[in-house]
Amino acid sequence: MDQLARAVADRTQFAADLFEELARQTHDGIGITRASYGEGEQKAHALMAETARSLGLGVAQDPACNSYFTLPGKSRRAPSVLIGSHLDSVAQGGNFDGAAGVVAGLTALAALKDAGITPSVDVTVMGVRAEESAWFGVSYLGSRAALGMLPNGALEAKRSDNGRSLADHIAECGGDPEALSSGPGVLDTSLIRAFLEPHIEQGPVLEERETPVGIVTGIRGNRRLPSARCFGRYAHCGGEPRWNRQDAVIGVSEFVMALDAIWTETEAGGGDFAYTVGKFFTDAKRHAMTIVNGEVEFSLDLRSLDPKFLGKMEGRLNEIARNIEARRGVRFDLGQVTKAAPGRMDTVIRNSLWQGVREREIKAMEIASGAAHDSAAFAAAGVPTAMIFIRNAHGSHNPDEAMRIEDFMVATDLLAWQLTRF
Amino acid sequence: MDQLARAVADRTQFAADLFEELARQTHDGIGITRASYGEGEQKAHALMAETARSLGLGVAQDPACNSYFTLPGKSRRAPSVLIGSHLDSVAQGGNFDGAAGVVAGLTALAALKDAGITPSVDVTVMGVRAEESAWFGVSYLGSRAALGMLPNGALEAKRSDNGRSLADHIAECGGDPEALSSGPGVLDTSLIRAFLEPHIEQGPVLEERETPVGIVTGIRGNRRLPSARCFGRYAHCGGEPRWNRQDAVIGVSEFVMALDAIWTETEAGGGDFAYTVGKFFTDAKRHAMTIVNGEVEFSLDLRSLDPKFLGKMEGRLNEIARNIEARRGVRFDLGQVTKAAPGRMDTVIRNSLWQGVREREIKAMEIASGAAHDSAAFAAAGVPTAMIFIRNAHGSHNPDEAMRIEDFMVATDLLAWQLTRF
Repeated sequence: MDQLARAVADRTQFAADLFEELARQTHDGIGITRASYGEGEQKAHALMAETARSLGLGVAQDPACNSYFTLPGKSRRAPSVLIGSHLDSVAQGGNFDGAAGVVAGLTALAALKDAGITPSVDVTVMGVRAEESAWFGVSYLGSRAALGMLPNGALEAKRSDNGRSLADHIAECGGDPEALSSGPGVLDTSLIRAFLEPHIEQGPVLEERETPVGIVTGIRGNRRLPSARCFGRYAHCGGEPRWNRQDAVIGVSEFVMALDAIWTETEAGGGDFAYTVGKFFTDAKRHAMTIVNGEVEFSLDLRSLDPKFLGKMEGRLNEIARNIEARRGVRFDLGQVTKAAPGRMDTVIRNSLWQGVREREIKAMEIASGAAHDSAAFAAAGVPTAMIFIRNAHGSHNPDEAMRIEDFMVATDLLAWQLTRF
Repeated sequence: MDQLARAVADRTQFAADLFEELARQTHDGIGITRASYGEGEQKAHALMAETARSLGLGVAQDPACNSYFTLPGKSRRAPSVLIGSHLDSVAQGGNFDGAAGVVAGLTALAALKDAGITPSVDVTVMGVRAEESAWFGVSYLGSRAALGMLPNGALEAKRSDNGRSLADHIAECGGDPEALSSGPGVLDTSLIRAFLEPHIEQGPVLEERETPVGIVTGIRGNRRLPSARCFGRYAHCGGEPRWNRQDAVIGVSEFVMALDAIWTETEAGGGDFAYTVGKFFTDAKRHAMTIVNGEVEFSLDLRSLDPKFLGKMEGRLNEIARNIEARRGVRFDLGQVTKAAPGRMDTVIRNSLWQGVREREIKAMEIASGAAHDSAAFAAAGVPTAMIFIRNAHGSHNPDEAMRIEDFMVATDLLAWQLTRF
């Protein structure tokens, strides 16, 4: 074991203690709640800043209240490396989704210092604000604010629990919403060498494959239909013959199964695709056991690593709808379609991480990220980006998240190793 | 035109006035409301009794408050003929569903008297209580009470709008719930020669075929699943790979489409079948655009004229569920299954009605009844039963029901003709 690996291993208790203190401060009685720009998130940023100071790192915040903890490198002029993830959580969520990336960054920097290693360029751990879309209805607000890529109207978005605007919350936390609405981003992407994000896996793949870490191949982009509808005609089921029925339930069921067939066909061809119908409901005020339904509302989430495939799917959704309409006498209104481009992971950094996996004799695997992450914002801004997934049982966004510290330290060791390669 | 036909035609204004007065008394501002054992139904029975008295008919009520209006026949000992239908309606329903059968009976008896014709046996018009299952969750309570066939616990059933029991409502209307719970039925089926029910068609078939009346071939029986569930596992859609998904929405969608395939296959083979998924909903408290659903609730109504087919379908529903469970990792709980046997229409009376159609030169067609009717209760009790459907636009159970008086009089003429054939 080399000096750095030993230094990382010696920081195991430091990391475990930091997770424990974070959980203690942000537990809500059932799970972890760190609302975007809320009390729990503020506590998390304060705890990380206090920890960074104790490690002798530089501490700063930007107008969106993102935190930056910097270990100066040999060259202070070369583009620096960012390690980042978010410090907010969903309501009654888990302790590790997001925070693990920040703790991994701080632990890696602590180990570098312990080992007396000065990286060639500045390395900054970024504690990102407001990644979870549950709070303001928009994903990775903190990253996008820092990159000058906030979507129009985002500052007026209302937080789901209290109805107050994002601008209001940023100001309350000591930030500067005006600077965000008028100025460029605080991060100059030409000065960022790389963005690295360790994150717990939110699915069961690493757990099932008994593999502690995954090297992410890409972040799936999506097409989303938040509120699609199918209209038929309400009718008493006893009297309505088949040829006269316009049954919205059958219309949407057929739509769902058409997507299922596309999934099978796409996977068989080696393509990447997933779809989810998160909502599907008849009208509680009008539905009844003996009534043919005149309306069904549903939502749709389509994901793929392949941007061309997603583009084609938009057209294909319409084809499926027209086809069902022609045969079933129903009418679809697919409503608004929102888009997020897939996040490309940088090939050079990925190859380097695989070299680290071999050198450190780590058990690892390639894995696609189904969920969106801050990394998607950095990749979209043109920053070379890579993600390391950490094995985690029971999924995320719930109090049962179960990342083991051993797996976390494997990922942190790989991260620290990578920091010596820039 | 013979004397009876002329007498029927001369009673057109009588029938139109009776419908109009009934609508006037039971209009709720939007549609017609005659709740089972409620104010509107009481008014309807009072109006029909008053009309029957003015026609010189005998007037009586039974312990379930069903009304009986009798024209004595030549022989008072022979089994009598009943003409009946219900006087209740759904909330904000139409004026003709049910009531048309009672008005047709009274109009036919008036015409017989006008023509100086005494039928060979007593003919009684029965104003039936509480046919609509919307009020107490059970169909044709009045018929079944009269026949001594009330289901267990029916007297304790609660009315959907006020939560008070059927027994309570019957007593309030002057009936005798105790007699119903302990005694035999008031109607001795061995003394009923026939039960004839004119009723508006609740579907569009007669309207589409430009045919004023239909001779009903049978009443579809049913199997109903009021509250079936499919359980999967809630999961964040981004992280959950296909092989680990247990998606309740896909499970139920596939179930719906499997039934659709059976419908196509059954119709192709000349069989009679219809199914309706009246409810299909994800859990409003847990569903979200990006969540794989762990639970879907749905209802199912299966109908057929063929009792063997319905019996087989019960097993087939389980087969479909097991098949989907094996492939999709979901679990179905089909819940309670309620059954209603198909109602057989008497072949001798049907043939006689067809003879009347030819003699009266009426345009008529054979038609199956998809909806249940009081006739189903009489047929189940072994009474020779027949139904005449009357053309009606816009379906039933809504304020737009549109039966034309001309069509109603065609059916009434056929009914009066039939009364001379017993």
